[in-house]
Amino acid sequence: MFSGDYDKALAALVLANSARELDVEVTMFFAFWGLFLVRDPEKAPSDDKTAYEKMFGMMTPKGPEELHLSRMNMAGLGKQMLLDMMEDDKTPSLTDFLNGARKKGVKFYGCKLSVDVMGFSEEELIPEVEIITAKEYLRDALDSDMQLFI
Amino acid sequence: MFSGDYDKALAALVLANSARELDVEVTMFFAFWGLFLVRDPEKAPSDDKTAYEKMFGMMTPKGPEELHLSRMNMAGLGKQMLLDMMEDDKTPSLTDFLNGARKKGVKFYGCKLSVDVMGFSEEELIPEVEIITAKEYLRDALDSDMQLFI
Amino acid sequence: MFSGDYDKALAALVLANSARELDVEVTMFFAFWGLFLVRDPEKAPSDDKTAYEKMFGMMTPKGPEELHLSRMNMAGLGKQMLLDMMEDDKTPSLTDFLNGARKKGVKFYGCKLSVDVMGFSEEELIPEVEIITAKEYLRDALDSDMQLFI
Repeated sequence: MFSGDYDKALAALVLANSARELDVEVTMFFAFWGLFLVRDPEKAPSDDKTAYEKMFGMMTPKGPEELHLSRMNMAGLGKQMLLDMMEDDKTPSLTDFLNGARKKGVKFYGCKLSVDVMGFSEEELIPEVEIITAKEYLRDALDSDMQLFI
Repeated sequence: MFSGDYDKALAALVLANSARELDVEVTMFFAFWGLFLVRDPEKAPSDDKTAYEKMFGMMTPKGPEELHLSRMNMAGLGKQMLLDMMEDDKTPSLTDFLNGARKKGVKFYGCKLSVDVMGFSEEELIPEVEIITAKEYLRDALDSDMQLFI
Repeated sequence: MFSGDYDKALAALVLANSARELDVEVTMFFAFWGLFLVRDPEKAPSDDKTAYEKMFGMMTPKGPEELHLSRMNMAGLGKQMLLDMMEDDKTPSLTDFLNGARKKGVKFYGCKLSVDVMGFSEEELIPEVEIITAKEYLRDALDSDMQLFI
């Protein structure tokens, strides 16, 4: 999960939830902008950030509901329209899908390099997220039946 | 196929056509913005849409030729430049590649959740598209040799 | 590798380098905007370009350091911020990762269709890049343990 867009996160989490319902093991590896999805909106930023990291943390989405659409976001108008259309169809929200994935035992990993560069600490992320290296991710991914870069 | 960009659709369909020429079975699963590619420009929108769905249908691309570039679109100028460069090289258009994939027996599926949220009916899409759930897609994808999220 | 964004190229090359360190064979196939990453900034454009191809070559990034961020680029400000944050953490630059991949024996291929349409010649790209068709790429990819569309 590289992207930090609402719509792409929705696609990823719909697939993750569906796969768990098929009893397939699912691992999500969050790198770069993808980390925004697993920031815990309730947690305060850690104290040991550089000025840049502080600014970066404040400028970027904190958790699922703050993500933007990858297109047609139109300063939030397009996103609101999508949310309304989802509600009309009684589609669960992105937060619901994220919580569903957590409950269903999807494994969550954060990319060590991304976390270091962006200055996020494990404490600012939802508790399920464990920080691993790209190499550790690859070892797991190479053995899996399906890999998607989203 | 998640994206609704001209260039990404081109990449996907070049791969789909090439794979069929290698006698490889190909399935394309269209979700979210990806559905724009398989909207049939000749078909009228169905009547039972909400106001939002009507507006959404009108604001968004209808079929391959209305898609934009993912970058350098420049209000259509960049796209026109690409189209001219493709013509200079006698490269087929996106519509040609789409029709090629249809003739060569690529299987087309649309994502049920996306279709419901966006208010598209199967009748507005090209006839090859069958609507299935993410779970049905996954069952197929997990058994395949290669999966790409485009 | 379809994308021509600095951040996505970074993700791709971190994975490519990590995989080589695990002794896994790695092939990168550059198509469309992805070709910008393997343009050699030292090489002059070839002479036999159409007017469009010349203009296109001049308007687009030449090599890794000229790529933009896929989001938050903010006319280069966001990218500079990311570069500074990377330097603070002593993270190698994109060029370092590209050179690492070249030294570690990652195989580089360029997409023939893209190269033809965009008017790039093999001589304008880094020497490791060999031009192949989508079909040749697919034959290789279908036999591999993992494929990512980035």
